[in-house]
Amino acid sequence: MSVERTFECEAVPTWREQLTVRSFAVSAVLGFFLSFIVMKLNLTTGIIPSLNVSAGLLGFFFVKSWTKILEKSGLLRHPFTRQENTVIQTCVVACYGIAFSGGFGSYILGMSSRIANQQDQGPSTAAINTKEPSLPWLIGFLFTVSFVGLFSVVPLRKIMIIGYKLTYPSGTATAHLINSFHTPHGANLAKKQVVALFKSFIGSFLWAFFQWFYTAGDDCGFANFPTFGLSAYDKRFYFDFSATYVGVGMICPYIINASILLGGIISYGILWPFIETKSGIWYSADLKRSDMRGLQGYKVFISIAIILGDGLFNFLAVAIRTAYDISRRKKQQSDASSLSFDEIRRTKMFLQDQIPTWLSILGYLILAAVSVVVVPHIFPQLRFYHVIVMYLIAPVLAFCNSYGCGLTDWSLASNYGKLGIFVFCAWVGVHHGGIVAGLAACGVMMSIVSTASDLMQDFKTGYLTLSSPRSMFFSQVLGTAMGCVFGPCVFWIFYKAFPLGSKGSEYPAPYAAIYRAIAMIGVQGTSALPANCLILCLFYFLMAVLLDLMKVVADRRKWRIRGFIPNPMAMAIPFYIGSYFAIDMCVGSLILFVWQKMNKRQADAFAPSVASGMICGDGIWALPSAILSLAKVKPPMCMKFFSGADYAKLGG
Amino acid sequence: MSVERTFECEAVPTWREQLTVRSFAVSAVLGFFLSFIVMKLNLTTGIIPSLNVSAGLLGFFFVKSWTKILEKSGLLRHPFTRQENTVIQTCVVACYGIAFSGGFGSYILGMSSRIANQQDQGPSTAAINTKEPSLPWLIGFLFTVSFVGLFSVVPLRKIMIIGYKLTYPSGTATAHLINSFHTPHGANLAKKQVVALFKSFIGSFLWAFFQWFYTAGDDCGFANFPTFGLSAYDKRFYFDFSATYVGVGMICPYIINASILLGGIISYGILWPFIETKSGIWYSADLKRSDMRGLQGYKVFISIAIILGDGLFNFLAVAIRTAYDISRRKKQQSDASSLSFDEIRRTKMFLQDQIPTWLSILGYLILAAVSVVVVPHIFPQLRFYHVIVMYLIAPVLAFCNSYGCGLTDWSLASNYGKLGIFVFCAWVGVHHGGIVAGLAACGVMMSIVSTASDLMQDFKTGYLTLSSPRSMFFSQVLGTAMGCVFGPCVFWIFYKAFPLGSKGSEYPAPYAAIYRAIAMIGVQGTSALPANCLILCLFYFLMAVLLDLMKVVADRRKWRIRGFIPNPMAMAIPFYIGSYFAIDMCVGSLILFVWQKMNKRQADAFAPSVASGMICGDGIWALPSAILSLAKVKPPMCMKFFSGADYAKLGG
Repeated sequence: MSVERTFECEAVPTWREQLTVRSFAVSAVLGFFLSFIVMKLNLTTGIIPSLNVSAGLLGFFFVKSWTKILEKSGLLRHPFTRQENTVIQTCVVACYGIAFSGGFGSYILGMSSRIANQQDQGPSTAAINTKEPSLPWLIGFLFTVSFVGLFSVVPLRKIMIIGYKLTYPSGTATAHLINSFHTPHGANLAKKQVVALFKSFIGSFLWAFFQWFYTAGDDCGFANFPTFGLSAYDKRFYFDFSATYVGVGMICPYIINASILLGGIISYGILWPFIETKSGIWYSADLKRSDMRGLQGYKVFISIAIILGDGLFNFLAVAIRTAYDISRRKKQQSDASSLSFDEIRRTKMFLQDQIPTWLSILGYLILAAVSVVVVPHIFPQLRFYHVIVMYLIAPVLAFCNSYGCGLTDWSLASNYGKLGIFVFCAWVGVHHGGIVAGLAACGVMMSIVSTASDLMQDFKTGYLTLSSPRSMFFSQVLGTAMGCVFGPCVFWIFYKAFPLGSKGSEYPAPYAAIYRAIAMIGVQGTSALPANCLILCLFYFLMAVLLDLMKVVADRRKWRIRGFIPNPMAMAIPFYIGSYFAIDMCVGSLILFVWQKMNKRQADAFAPSVASGMICGDGIWALPSAILSLAKVKPPMCMKFFSGADYAKLGG
Repeated sequence: MSVERTFECEAVPTWREQLTVRSFAVSAVLGFFLSFIVMKLNLTTGIIPSLNVSAGLLGFFFVKSWTKILEKSGLLRHPFTRQENTVIQTCVVACYGIAFSGGFGSYILGMSSRIANQQDQGPSTAAINTKEPSLPWLIGFLFTVSFVGLFSVVPLRKIMIIGYKLTYPSGTATAHLINSFHTPHGANLAKKQVVALFKSFIGSFLWAFFQWFYTAGDDCGFANFPTFGLSAYDKRFYFDFSATYVGVGMICPYIINASILLGGIISYGILWPFIETKSGIWYSADLKRSDMRGLQGYKVFISIAIILGDGLFNFLAVAIRTAYDISRRKKQQSDASSLSFDEIRRTKMFLQDQIPTWLSILGYLILAAVSVVVVPHIFPQLRFYHVIVMYLIAPVLAFCNSYGCGLTDWSLASNYGKLGIFVFCAWVGVHHGGIVAGLAACGVMMSIVSTASDLMQDFKTGYLTLSSPRSMFFSQVLGTAMGCVFGPCVFWIFYKAFPLGSKGSEYPAPYAAIYRAIAMIGVQGTSALPANCLILCLFYFLMAVLLDLMKVVADRRKWRIRGFIPNPMAMAIPFYIGSYFAIDMCVGSLILFVWQKMNKRQADAFAPSVASGMICGDGIWALPSAILSLAKVKPPMCMKFFSGADYAKLGG
């Protein structure tokens, strides 16, 4: 089954022809739209599913409709090719990628005094350890650091894609999608998928709009529906009717959703109630709820322990595997006799348009020089030599992450970021603004490693769709530039309209507090923690490592239980924010499961579209909702739940 | 396409073989179950859809499963025939028919002092004008009057079925259903339909159960969800999440649902707000809300005016059509040469088993004699000569109703009942207990005419399924006897567990107040009504007549608008109780409409089953709900809706 045979009669456009004005116009619209959605997810739970499929679908739909109209009116000059589609895809993903790697829900919000004051602990709340977000420095900072990653891995593309033949599962899936769209049957399916996406989009938007009417006042509305009774609600077990997380649950694998639920049960079901019985013994009973010296401390640090355990394990695992693979593949590389038609054609096209290595090295050096001047200017807590060190390590980390992502599809950008926090917090020290310095370093690290792995994913997609590496690179640069403007602007809307980061609110932004807490460990050590917290952290850290280890062994030995080993990273989130979204995601799993039982073919073809529609519809409601909130328009009603006894007290 | 050719090789069982123990056991179970559901509908809005299809489906399913099990174990002696199925159908319909024609939600509740005190107007609330329901007299009364109708029309069956060839749409539809079940393909479809029914049954039951948890306190829970905002809720426009009425909406024709909604808009949207502006001018402003001299009077009497206008028109229309048809058909009757195979075979079977005319006349006379003694004993307000007069008119009315029903499928039993109220109220007079006398007379009339038309429907079904008239008659008698016990018992559960008839409660039983108000006009005249009420009544009475007239003319002239003329009877209900159930029913219409658009074949085959399942599941929840209420188990939570301002006042 050769894909390229079916496309053989079609001429491949040159790299300049692949870059069209219409494609960038569409990319800008979609990029803004998806930035919004990613931002919302960032600020609610921080769990962000892959929206690549939505981006591909919507890009195809828009340009196809546009070219259809032009074709009918006789004005069409260039047909819509799969290379152009890949360009759109690349540009959009680069654009909304900034909304994630820009760290608006994590390190940037973590710098603000709003988060700092929630975790009041002596010198760390001083002015030198906070920095309020503001539009100019956000845009400036992102422009400075977001392009470095691109230049750092460009020279490696041939080794990664053609030499090591890395899989890059997401990139490959996207390429298959685009290839299938551009065969006649595929376009037909795509149209149906787009219709499904739009239906669920509109349904989900209207549902979010409907919910809004019942949210006059705190704790009102469907988002606080005690589906399993009031005592379960107090432990944060309830279905909050969020279409977003039902959709996310339909996209995420069953085991991830189950892991989140398990994490919720262990933490809010067992561990926290147990620790609460020790109030006054392990920690002072008269602390504020948000005080890090109380229960809140256990919540934050145990989640961090799990995340670090999982992160460290994966980091080492990927490093070992990388080293092993490099040593092994080197020998296999000569084995070039058995190349298929597809491979020969793709390799030829991939090698046709070159990006000179001197250009990428020059680009990297110029950008590094700019950063050394600009970054200390934005963050006086960082000195020029700190930045130079970052730029010396960065290319190595970028390579590691691109390689790991190619193997496992799991970008470890945030782990590299956390590593950055530790190192630079300790180096700068709390009295010289170590917290802000660490968080800023985290930003630099994350941007570099995350854009590097994104670019390599796109090169793989380009390789599989005969798109030129040059057009991929150019499109990624333009998309990143768009993202550097859109991301801060969208964040600004949320920041002005909602009390971001307050726990229990609509936008708790859990990672902001977690990242800041990591920074505080970096500068302060663990002495301020409540009793037994460190023991518990160690226990859960080891549990995470153990689970990962079990997973690796089970995969290798092909144990039957290998599909049922929970994922520690997923388990960690509900430790901090509770498991209401886990219920949503399990509902999503349930819907998918029933659908697959009823009609597997239909479910596989349409479930991602329907789920994307649900996520996007609910996500985009955040825009009018923010506008209403800014305009001080209050919802008309409050839907409130009382226990029978409380209601009787109201005299109802 | 001859149906009987396909059944030709099957021997027709004798009438004794058609009556089996298993069929009556199944009938008793289903009869009790459906009595429950009809009772609930009686006591909520009084709108009762046809449950014949559910009865047929469930009867088939139970006996078929039973015989399948026996067949496999080798113990089966008699196969399950369509005649036996018809026997079950007949018995079940007769049984749950009593739950309706027994008037528990109308004349019996209307006698109680609970309803009387809501409409306090001088002498009509005196003890002589009320009678409290109690189990013994209810059962005694029903046994006395419910069999008369059967004997009165038995001699006419040959004229109606074979002579006039009346259609009896419901009876014919049931017969087709049963015939199709008993051909191999039909049984397969039936099984799928039963599965669909059970799924929606369980879903609807669980939904009702879930809703219960949120109903601690008045006005709590989903039944008071202000779907369209609080001001629309105050005007009783909201979706109350009742699966029952969504299901009813799926069974009722679109025009009925639209008519109900239109009635709601005219009354609660326009007319009542207008009359409320006249408070203090047209009527005293300091009356209780339920006082008949205030707004409540307008509500009750305008609904009655519409119902009477529609009833009177239909009564006359059917009478004229009957007379016209009899005179015309007499001539056609000789035209017997062109009979089809089906008709010859069916006629032969129908005439084979006779019920002697002398037996039915004797039965009628004996029952009449018993009634003359027993009825005045139960209701001292009625004298023996009143009862004799009733039994002299009854056979004529029974014939009229059977004939009209055969033509139009619309049983006018309740109209004959209302006629009875007027006549006997006026005759007895308020100081001799005219109200109870009138309501009791209504009961006698309704029972006679309704069982008469039911029996003739069953004869038609029997004719089309080659069932013997004798077995039909016997089955109807047994079903009626069951109904006379089940009906009062089920009513008793509701009566003890819930405050029936209080407006705004879960069971407002609108017809109880309406029937009593009719009786009060009968004894008192209209002098006590508020200003302009009579004018408005006349206007709406004429409107009802006009709409009916338009409908008749439009049908005859085949105007395009003939499908869009609203039904006055349906419009009248929301005038009294508001239009929340109209929203439910329109949601049902919408579901059906979308389903038919998507897959017409599937919708037509399964919509009635799904709707029946919804009605039955929600209906049967009334049983555990009543038990919980009797056991004083309170729901744990209250879901309550506030306006933004009210919620702020609560300090929330």
